[in-house]
Amino acid sequence: MALDRELARHIVASVDAGFAEQIEFTKSLIRFPSTRGNEHTIQDFVFGALRDRGYAMDRFAMEPDAIGRHVGGAPFSDQHSTAPIVVGIHRPRRETGRSLILQAHVDVVPTGPSDMWRTPPFDPVIEGDWLFGRGSGDMKAGHAANIFALDALRRAGLQPAATVYVQSVVEEESTGNGALMTHLRGYKADAVLIPEPEDEKLVRANVGVLWFDVEVRGVPAHVREMSDGTNAIDAAYRVVAALRAIEADWNAQKTGRPHFENEPHPINLNLGKIQGGDWASSVPSWCRISCRISIYPGITAAEAAREIAECVADFARSDRFLANNPPRVTFGGFYSEGYVLQPGSEAEAVLDRAHETVIGKPLESFMTAGYLDTRVYALYDQVPALCYGPIARSIHAADESVSLPSVERITKTMALFIAEWCGLESAESR
Amino acid sequence: MALDRELARHIVASVDAGFAEQIEFTKSLIRFPSTRGNEHTIQDFVFGALRDRGYAMDRFAMEPDAIGRHVGGAPFSDQHSTAPIVVGIHRPRRETGRSLILQAHVDVVPTGPSDMWRTPPFDPVIEGDWLFGRGSGDMKAGHAANIFALDALRRAGLQPAATVYVQSVVEEESTGNGALMTHLRGYKADAVLIPEPEDEKLVRANVGVLWFDVEVRGVPAHVREMSDGTNAIDAAYRVVAALRAIEADWNAQKTGRPHFENEPHPINLNLGKIQGGDWASSVPSWCRISCRISIYPGITAAEAAREIAECVADFARSDRFLANNPPRVTFGGFYSEGYVLQPGSEAEAVLDRAHETVIGKPLESFMTAGYLDTRVYALYDQVPALCYGPIARSIHAADESVSLPSVERITKTMALFIAEWCGLESAESR
Repeated sequence: MALDRELARHIVASVDAGFAEQIEFTKSLIRFPSTRGNEHTIQDFVFGALRDRGYAMDRFAMEPDAIGRHVGGAPFSDQHSTAPIVVGIHRPRRETGRSLILQAHVDVVPTGPSDMWRTPPFDPVIEGDWLFGRGSGDMKAGHAANIFALDALRRAGLQPAATVYVQSVVEEESTGNGALMTHLRGYKADAVLIPEPEDEKLVRANVGVLWFDVEVRGVPAHVREMSDGTNAIDAAYRVVAALRAIEADWNAQKTGRPHFENEPHPINLNLGKIQGGDWASSVPSWCRISCRISIYPGITAAEAAREIAECVADFARSDRFLANNPPRVTFGGFYSEGYVLQPGSEAEAVLDRAHETVIGKPLESFMTAGYLDTRVYALYDQVPALCYGPIARSIHAADESVSLPSVERITKTMALFIAEWCGLESAESR
Repeated sequence: MALDRELARHIVASVDAGFAEQIEFTKSLIRFPSTRGNEHTIQDFVFGALRDRGYAMDRFAMEPDAIGRHVGGAPFSDQHSTAPIVVGIHRPRRETGRSLILQAHVDVVPTGPSDMWRTPPFDPVIEGDWLFGRGSGDMKAGHAANIFALDALRRAGLQPAATVYVQSVVEEESTGNGALMTHLRGYKADAVLIPEPEDEKLVRANVGVLWFDVEVRGVPAHVREMSDGTNAIDAAYRVVAALRAIEADWNAQKTGRPHFENEPHPINLNLGKIQGGDWASSVPSWCRISCRISIYPGITAAEAAREIAECVADFARSDRFLANNPPRVTFGGFYSEGYVLQPGSEAEAVLDRAHETVIGKPLESFMTAGYLDTRVYALYDQVPALCYGPIARSIHAADESVSLPSVERITKTMALFIAEWCGLESAESR
């Protein structure tokens, strides 16, 4: 049942009233250089921000054993973050509505060469409608929106009439173990909303993602005897070429898959990082490549991993050098399944109404070909997991930025969504 | 005029008498992990060893300006060694013979992954006839042979009747600036002998060598939008493929070149090192490759560098991505010409006689397709520059080793060579 129009206007106006403060909060989040493993201080900042608002606080560490036993757990490498997960909990006086998880991650991907940025990546700068900075779109604007959508209700003298968990996680850009850890700790709600930068659209389906490293070792030699040694860099590159066959095969399998068959290239294999050799005048004896590939919903990470390992092993057997020096394939990051958001849920209907009230047109949905934490809630809690957030540019790239008018719009949508989904009661005085 | 047989036997026996000590000295040299930039302590050790023997000592630094002005100078990068060059000087009572430079370098190439070694690379181990360790062959065995060939004469109550410079240099594996610096400081002699591991043969010709880096920058992107970004690693690899055309062209030019036309593949382009990207799930925005290529004697480094830079620029113009993101080519190491040892010199004839006396067969000569410091003396002093040394295995590779019987043989050859080339006088008592 749609919100009362007057009430909706009141809530929307309250988002506007808090928006300057919301921008400042977002900028504060961007100033933390919270790349993988470096999220301790931002999580402490978020803990303080939620505690100051009166939420009951929970802060906890990853449990590698529990994660390792779960089908959705990703392997731990020595790069895995040890930063805590932070949850602020709103409990209403009377639990009359539907509970909700609002989730966001604080980890950001590396900046790349800082001289490719027009402004320093962790120094938030506003130019026109756009807020620049690493993580501005992915997803510090959404993180702030979670908190400020609830703030807006409070400013309007209201609060959700159901439990709301505000989750601040890590490891979203590398394993998804942060979101999984909230699940393993027992958090569950009737719906989940994660405001990732999705161009004001709802994610209907996504892909699973696997990370893997391929390491080639070769017999090195002085370059004057190049034929004696075999170049490990060249050999690793041949393995990538072999893996392109899997990518092509998997893309061909899009036929008959509803959310994928109209995409020109739904499955991407990315050669993201390479390191090999020590010296220009030595034939390199080692090369390590870090790859990322995606898989369709319904295919498990284990199935895909097996196919990748077999592809590399098959190719190696056919390669004169690699047959004697089999490459080592290791899975040290994402190891996740994709999900489909089943249409027709009440949660989606409520978001659709809120979106249409604010934006003036129906909510569009689409497939996004990247990892999303919503998979944890969709696959393992089997609840509506809504990924919906602002317009952003150059995500994972230099000069990442987020549209501030869009952030304001989606914060309004979120506030209206919370109001209708959870119901409202008068705010407690704090 | 050949040495008196009895005298030769006496000198050879003296090498044998000192050989156990020579092995220990060689092992001491191997224990210094004297990779580029890390040669300070080994040079101090060598300084002490030469001073203790009573040589007049000279120790001096690189002069980047003077090196930069010289046609044989290589560019200085921030990896350039700052270790000193050490020279021990023998002056006879009466300068009646021909002067000689005995040169060796103390720098060694990186070990590569240490787990590819059967024994730790800087922990010298003897197994049967072989002494293992990084630098054992290239060229700490030769370095010790310079010193112990002179020691053998002394043990026999003799010393050279001409000035002998024992030079211990750095940067042989990266620029050749160490050898050039001895030239710039004014060192010159009637002949030069460098006991690099050349399988008991004499180097007749070698190649010039150039090091260059190619750096590609690309517009990165989230991997879900792979077509927006362009993979800098893939782009760098395309540049290497383009450079293979130069390699093929230069190999085709071997026709008519006396020391090269019978070699199957005299010119080698080595992709020695690669680094690119930061993150498996980001399309990499940068990639840097370090290459080494060789050139025929008579071709200047500047001519070759121009051709390389033009090849990269031409290819970039034809490449949709690189046309807008031109790769940067920089020359930061070897920038050297090759040399030919003209047959017929008296120095070669003396070495040939010494070799035949010890080994029992005539001295063979051959082309070696790598950089050698002898180029400095051959090209800029225009004196006979003899590169001749022991049998070694796995140079620049794991499990590098040198044949100890071969080291003993070439030390004998060297002692006889010095005796005949420089002439002899009775040793001074010290």
